Amino acid sequence: MKVLVLHGPNLNLLGQREPEVYGFMTLDQINEEIAALASQLELEIDFFQSNEEGALIDRIHRAKGTYQWIIFNPGALSIYSYALRDAISSVEIPTIEVHLSNIQAREEFRARSVIAPVCVGQIAGFGMTSYLLALYAVFERGRGE
Amino acid sequence: MKVLVLHGPNLNLLGQREPEVYGFMTLDQINEEIAALASQLELEIDFFQSNEEGALIDRIHRAKGTYQWIIFNPGALSIYSYALRDAISSVEIPTIEVHLSNIQAREEFRARSVIAPVCVGQIAGFGMTSYLLALYAVFERGRGE
Amino acid sequence: MKVLVLHGPNLNLLGQREPEVYGFMTLDQINEEIAALASQLELEIDFFQSNEEGALIDRIHRAKGTYQWIIFNPGALSIYSYALRDAISSVEIPTIEVHLSNIQAREEFRARSVIAPVCVGQIAGFGMTSYLLALYAVFERGRGE
Amino acid sequence: MKVLVLHGPNLNLLGQREPEVYGFMTLDQINEEIAALASQLELEIDFFQSNEEGALIDRIHRAKGTYQWIIFNPGALSIYSYALRDAISSVEIPTIEVHLSNIQAREEFRARSVIAPVCVGQIAGFGMTSYLLALYAVFERGRGE
Amino acid sequence: MKVLVLHGPNLNLLGQREPEVYGFMTLDQINEEIAALASQLELEIDFFQSNEEGALIDRIHRAKGTYQWIIFNPGALSIYSYALRDAISSVEIPTIEVHLSNIQAREEFRARSVIAPVCVGQIAGFGMTSYLLALYAVFERGRGE
Amino acid sequence: MKVLVLHGPNLNLLGQREPEVYGFMTLDQINEEIAALASQLELEIDFFQSNEEGALIDRIHRAKGTYQWIIFNPGALSIYSYALRDAISSVEIPTIEVHLSNIQAREEFRARSVIAPVCVGQIAGFGMTSYLLALYAVFERGRGE
Amino acid sequence: MKVLVLHGPNLNLLGQREPEVYGFMTLDQINEEIAALASQLELEIDFFQSNEEGALIDRIHRAKGTYQWIIFNPGALSIYSYALRDAISSVEIPTIEVHLSNIQAREEFRARSVIAPVCVGQIAGFGMTSYLLALYAVFERGRGE
Amino acid sequence: MKVLVLHGPNLNLLGQREPEVYGFMTLDQINEEIAALASQLELEIDFFQSNEEGALIDRIHRAKGTYQWIIFNPGALSIYSYALRDAISSVEIPTIEVHLSNIQAREEFRARSVIAPVCVGQIAGFGMTSYLLALYAVFERGRGE
Amino acid sequence: MKVLVLHGPNLNLLGQREPEVYGFMTLDQINEEIAALASQLELEIDFFQSNEEGALIDRIHRAKGTYQWIIFNPGALSIYSYALRDAISSVEIPTIEVHLSNIQAREEFRARSVIAPVCVGQIAGFGMTSYLLALYAVFERGRGE
Amino acid sequence: MKVLVLHGPNLNLLGQREPEVYGFMTLDQINEEIAALASQLELEIDFFQSNEEGALIDRIHRAKGTYQWIIFNPGALSIYSYALRDAISSVEIPTIEVHLSNIQAREEFRARSVIAPVCVGQIAGFGMTSYLLALYAVFERGRGE
Amino acid sequence: MKVLVLHGPNLNLLGQREPEVYGFMTLDQINEEIAALASQLELEIDFFQSNEEGALIDRIHRAKGTYQWIIFNPGALSIYSYALRDAISSVEIPTIEVHLSNIQAREEFRARSVIAPVCVGQIAGFGMTSYLLALYAVFERGRGE
Amino acid sequence: MKVLVLHGPNLNLLGQREPEVYGFMTLDQINEEIAALASQLELEIDFFQSNEEGALIDRIHRAKGTYQWIIFNPGALSIYSYALRDAISSVEIPTIEVHLSNIQAREEFRARSVIAPVCVGQIAGFGMTSYLLALYAVFERGRGE
Repeated sequence: MKVLVLHGPNLNLLGQREPEVYGFMTLDQINEEIAALASQLELEIDFFQSNEEGALIDRIHRAKGTYQWIIFNPGALSIYSYALRDAISSVEIPTIEVHLSNIQAREEFRARSVIAPVCVGQIAGFGMTSYLLALYAVFERGRGE
Repeated sequence: MKVLVLHGPNLNLLGQREPEVYGFMTLDQINEEIAALASQLELEIDFFQSNEEGALIDRIHRAKGTYQWIIFNPGALSIYSYALRDAISSVEIPTIEVHLSNIQAREEFRARSVIAPVCVGQIAGFGMTSYLLALYAVFERGRGE
Repeated sequence: MKVLVLHGPNLNLLGQREPEVYGFMTLDQINEEIAALASQLELEIDFFQSNEEGALIDRIHRAKGTYQWIIFNPGALSIYSYALRDAISSVEIPTIEVHLSNIQAREEFRARSVIAPVCVGQIAGFGMTSYLLALYAVFERGRGE
Repeated sequence: MKVLVLHGPNLNLLGQREPEVYGFMTLDQINEEIAALASQLELEIDFFQSNEEGALIDRIHRAKGTYQWIIFNPGALSIYSYALRDAISSVEIPTIEVHLSNIQAREEFRARSVIAPVCVGQIAGFGMTSYLLALYAVFERGRGE
Repeated sequence: MKVLVLHGPNLNLLGQREPEVYGFMTLDQINEEIAALASQLELEIDFFQSNEEGALIDRIHRAKGTYQWIIFNPGALSIYSYALRDAISSVEIPTIEVHLSNIQAREEFRARSVIAPVCVGQIAGFGMTSYLLALYAVFERGRGE
Repeated sequence: MKVLVLHGPNLNLLGQREPEVYGFMTLDQINEEIAALASQLELEIDFFQSNEEGALIDRIHRAKGTYQWIIFNPGALSIYSYALRDAISSVEIPTIEVHLSNIQAREEFRARSVIAPVCVGQIAGFGMTSYLLALYAVFERGRGE
Repeated sequence: MKVLVLHGPNLNLLGQREPEVYGFMTLDQINEEIAALASQLELEIDFFQSNEEGALIDRIHRAKGTYQWIIFNPGALSIYSYALRDAISSVEIPTIEVHLSNIQAREEFRARSVIAPVCVGQIAGFGMTSYLLALYAVFERGRGE
Repeated sequence: MKVLVLHGPNLNLLGQREPEVYGFMTLDQINEEIAALASQLELEIDFFQSNEEGALIDRIHRAKGTYQWIIFNPGALSIYSYALRDAISSVEIPTIEVHLSNIQAREEFRARSVIAPVCVGQIAGFGMTSYLLALYAVFERGRGE
Repeated sequence: MKVLVLHGPNLNLLGQREPEVYGFMTLDQINEEIAALASQLELEIDFFQSNEEGALIDRIHRAKGTYQWIIFNPGALSIYSYALRDAISSVEIPTIEVHLSNIQAREEFRARSVIAPVCVGQIAGFGMTSYLLALYAVFERGRGE
Repeated sequence: MKVLVLHGPNLNLLGQREPEVYGFMTLDQINEEIAALASQLELEIDFFQSNEEGALIDRIHRAKGTYQWIIFNPGALSIYSYALRDAISSVEIPTIEVHLSNIQAREEFRARSVIAPVCVGQIAGFGMTSYLLALYAVFERGRGE
Repeated sequence: MKVLVLHGPNLNLLGQREPEVYGFMTLDQINEEIAALASQLELEIDFFQSNEEGALIDRIHRAKGTYQWIIFNPGALSIYSYALRDAISSVEIPTIEVHLSNIQAREEFRARSVIAPVCVGQIAGFGMTSYLLALYAVFERGRGE
Repeated sequence: MKVLVLHGPNLNLLGQREPEVYGFMTLDQINEEIAALASQLELEIDFFQSNEEGALIDRIHRAKGTYQWIIFNPGALSIYSYALRDAISSVEIPTIEVHLSNIQAREEFRARSVIAPVCVGQIAGFGMTSYLLALYAVFERGRGE
């Protein structure tokens, strides 16, 4: 089973960006942790990060036929990118929305995700662990719940 | 008279994406139909599709001086792209907004277009035919209404 | 194929009423243009205009069994007439909503139509040509899109 | 490390209640699955279900000093129970909010949780697996993220 | 056919509480009237009153398999008890919402019921007679409408 | 005691209009059922249906002095016809608002009735039986509640 | 100078309808008072009352070319009749909106008039005198302010 | 009968301030016109203008016992001065709110007056004539309507 | 004069719960202070705390006939418990709403109390002293203000 | 300890203004009662009343360095005077907001105070006693709570 | 070129008032800095501070004919003083709105200024430097942009 | 001190785009003016323009470590680009938001900037001079305010 892990805008700065909110690990370190768990769960995994909505849409389109799951941290694009929402609906790959911080505990405008309604589910607030939980979710679903 | 047909994000997936909503023709097939009618109406026509707001803005800017009309299906960017709205205002080329689906009959957030107020008009709900109607509109306007 | 063209309140004043917004042709002249195109597209056509919501509802009811399409310019009734909306749902005749002006470029209260969600689609902003585009839409649909 | 798993109103009906939304397992079966994973992760676990807001508040109060984590599926109380929110703040036990269904993909009123802002994070949409992910989250946090 | 009549919070005070709004009969007297009509319509009937949301949920759960109809006056819980709403959905017993007063003629916050959308229908404003009408509704439905 | 039964717009199409929502009986058949029950309850009854707000207002005005009760299904006019609301207040005949469908379970805009606050009460969701319940209400009130 | 005095829905019931709100004079008596002042101010005057929006629109249309002013009490239609608003714009006859009661001191929904923005001004709250003040306004305007 | 005419902020600039909106007469000229009509109607009249909310409140308080009517143009204070509203309620002198411009035809925030609900009525849109109509209103009321 | 002091959900945790917001005294210590002042003011006093809405409603009902005043800190139930509001209206015992913290200086959702409109008044922000002030209020009212 | 008692607009009319809402005592009588209690509690006290927002701000500014507490009844200025709010923040003197009436039981616009969030607390609904309770609050706080 | 610098309510307290928000300089020191730069830019300058809306309006009125520019820090009056807005429109002197703090980064209610739409522009967030930037703006505009 | 000047979408069209709103200078001419003043103020300066949100985010990320200030005209992206907002927070370079036009004097949707709350301040409405003022602001801040 192949899983695409997508990181949206500003996540390339992890470790530098407001660490009290987002933690001290860099994106590469996080990807390594994700890869380690994936390997343990026998999931193939690829990573992609972009600050561009269009590049993320393109990457989602190209995922079709290759990946069985997408784990997606859309960053602030979750607040307004209806184009990303439509991209996810279009490819019909089950997608898990992931956020490092608890978006319902921050500014009001972060609480609602326009992407969540077309995802399988949402995991938010566990820092880097949010990604790992998404992997476990893929794994558990794969086992047949 | 030259017409630029612009397709926004996710329209490259036509034919594959939720066909019960968007129909079974691919974008290339649709473009062929548009080209056929354009030729019949003696309109010159070019096509451009992008999933990037910025690329669409650039294309609109470059249209200035070459095209007399733009037919634009902004996809989900109609919901929030004020930058595209300003691009259309800036080049002052009469633009027709087109949607495949009837956006007022779907989710509440699709009903209002931030782009519509700077367009000549809006045509929505006729599937691929929406583009053809926009061509007829250009043609009728060209005849002097 | 028979098409009923319905004109809602105040459209009888066309040509006299705020011509900078609605154009200089009278309703009769517009109906002649529509009839001409209909004949060219081999569509049978009838016209009805009323300033009364109730009379428009009655006319829609009577259309059942006779007309295959309705082209409807509800005028300002598009803002609040849920009774007309229900009339269209009731007769289950595919209906195209038409507006002379670009209702999304005017006062906020005109932007949303309570009727649009039960129509096939909406065409707005092309003056008299909006009706002609609706005819083309019927024609294209008739050809099998 | 001891973990209290709290089930709010109507969850006692699991397996009987709208299985197309909530799945076919009964609450006892789900609790067994949770217990199995807990044992594997070397977490001690207790369960409590109630349809009464007050009973849930009492249980949260008594958790103080005994449990290091709460995993809480508040059911529909997430929509309005500010008293439960205050109970969680009061005991200062890190709490994970869990929902079986993707609450952002259902009725508008379910999308916001008044409890989420005082929790560590939220996991929604994975059916019974949502609880398991919460256990993994406790486990990963316990390892020192 | 067995019918459960549920009375929500504060209804135990009937006859004493704001009689100009709710009438002068006590709950026992009302129950007697209901029982009399039920007997006349050959419906078996049971009564339950509680001021606790949780107790009402429990009672609804236990109704499953015993009662074919619920007649429910949720009192002020109709304004916010999404947990009761879910209880009714869960047991899938057809339920009629009943109010003594015309809730749309009082304070704005009483006008909408969060419970109504999962009920068969709503009867409000007829004082004690509201319950009787609900019985007639059960009776008529029983006859096959 | 004389009762006027008023049917608003589109109710003349009953039996043809969206039968999965409104049922399969025609208005004449419904009127017969109502008449039968009225006769059984010894109530005199008249019927009036119109698709025109103005005609309904006129009919309400003329009811003064002749009818002791009005049973009124305003259809979609319940959403916006403040003029009908004022008509009911003006004649001071106790009026029962009736809807075939459960208006709180449909589109948001149907849920509130501008007419309800000047009525005795509202009965919604019981199909044709809604009218019969209104008759029972008149009858029970006539007996002295 | 000719003035058309238009009375909207329910004003035919004046003197009978909620006299504590609208006063004890009948519409005929009010018309007589208006006519008396008109004659004193040397203004020609005609009256029209209807409970139908459509009939009022028709009357406004026919006013064109005959009347220099319209004095219009739209009753509750001021709350929602955008069609009447457009009728007034269409004929371009200066119009004064008149209300017997102080609409800003009653229910919230009466406070805003959709018609007021296309009128010269609004006079509300003076009972029958509101009409007389409108006549004085016509007269003062006629004198050249 | 004594009448106090109150002019709120910025009205001292009349004739200089945006004359296309407010007209070319100065406040003194307007006061002369008012005084002339007052004398003709045998009303005693005093004037007061201030740009200070507090000074206007003080003047209203002192009016008690001396004036039978207040004619008040609160200018922009009508939008937010609840303190002036309370001042008018406090002194219980019947007050007529007057505006030069049609406040419902301008910016949205001018449309509602917080003062109107405690006044007898409102006259807006007739320029200087608005004051004269208020005088006529006092006069007509004085005659016994 | 007998006074019932009611403490709502989570107040049993006082002294432990967020002491920087709610202070360091336990509920027992607060009750002792209240009792001491009550005794000084010659008021009889009883206490009741519950985390259950239903239990609080029951206690209010039983207060009828025994207590002349209720001092009620509803905690977070002030935000949504319309059932408690109705309980207070029902028993018609004058009630003073009390909050330890200044609810208007905290989260927006705490600012409005649904209970306040049926109370005599509200005292918020003085910590434990809020209760004492309520006692003084009872005392002053008792003396005849 | 010195306390400044500030009375906002219209409070100078107490005893005359809507006594059914505000009571029958004049401001002087109330001040005497306050002074009597202050003296009993060994608090020094000064009074200031103004109908001018600016004068109240000036008085608050001058309080700095002289008074340890402000007791402030802002009247209707509590609804909109952000300038007063800033004045209180600026001087950093603990302030108690006081209202004679229960502002949450009156018009919706009175319920929220823009001043409350910068005050220690709010006391509303006890008539003249509201001021006395504020004095007790100062006294209790002075004793060290 | 003469410039009037207006300081609204509470600015007289600068240096004392919440220095972490507004800085440590007093208003006199700020005025000196402004005067120094003005002299360097060869602009004549006058200062006025008041806590009274009315006094500020008066000062703006008197500015007419003397000053070519107004630099105005309205303080919290920017949130609600439509009367000041009208004063600025009335005198037609180009005005620059200035705020010490970044009003869009504070409480929601500070973000929108009712005065900004009638100003040339707005400068906010630079502390005392905001005034200096406004001077530079006047200077640059004076040079002809 | 190095300053990065960022121009968002459509600013490349300056001088051609709606010059009555945005002025007649091209972006190159504006950059020259900015460079000239920067040089005079001894600030190093670089420019970047893009129509792509993603490219702007990338440029902000790369600014870290090189620039001490960013001057940013986000164009229409200020209305919705929460991703840009997070980019600015992430790099923690003090940023000044600049707009050519007075965004609070245009369409409602332009008035609020989602970017402003993470900036030092905002300067809007001075055409090209807005950039120059931002430079002065950097300069003044550099001198130590």
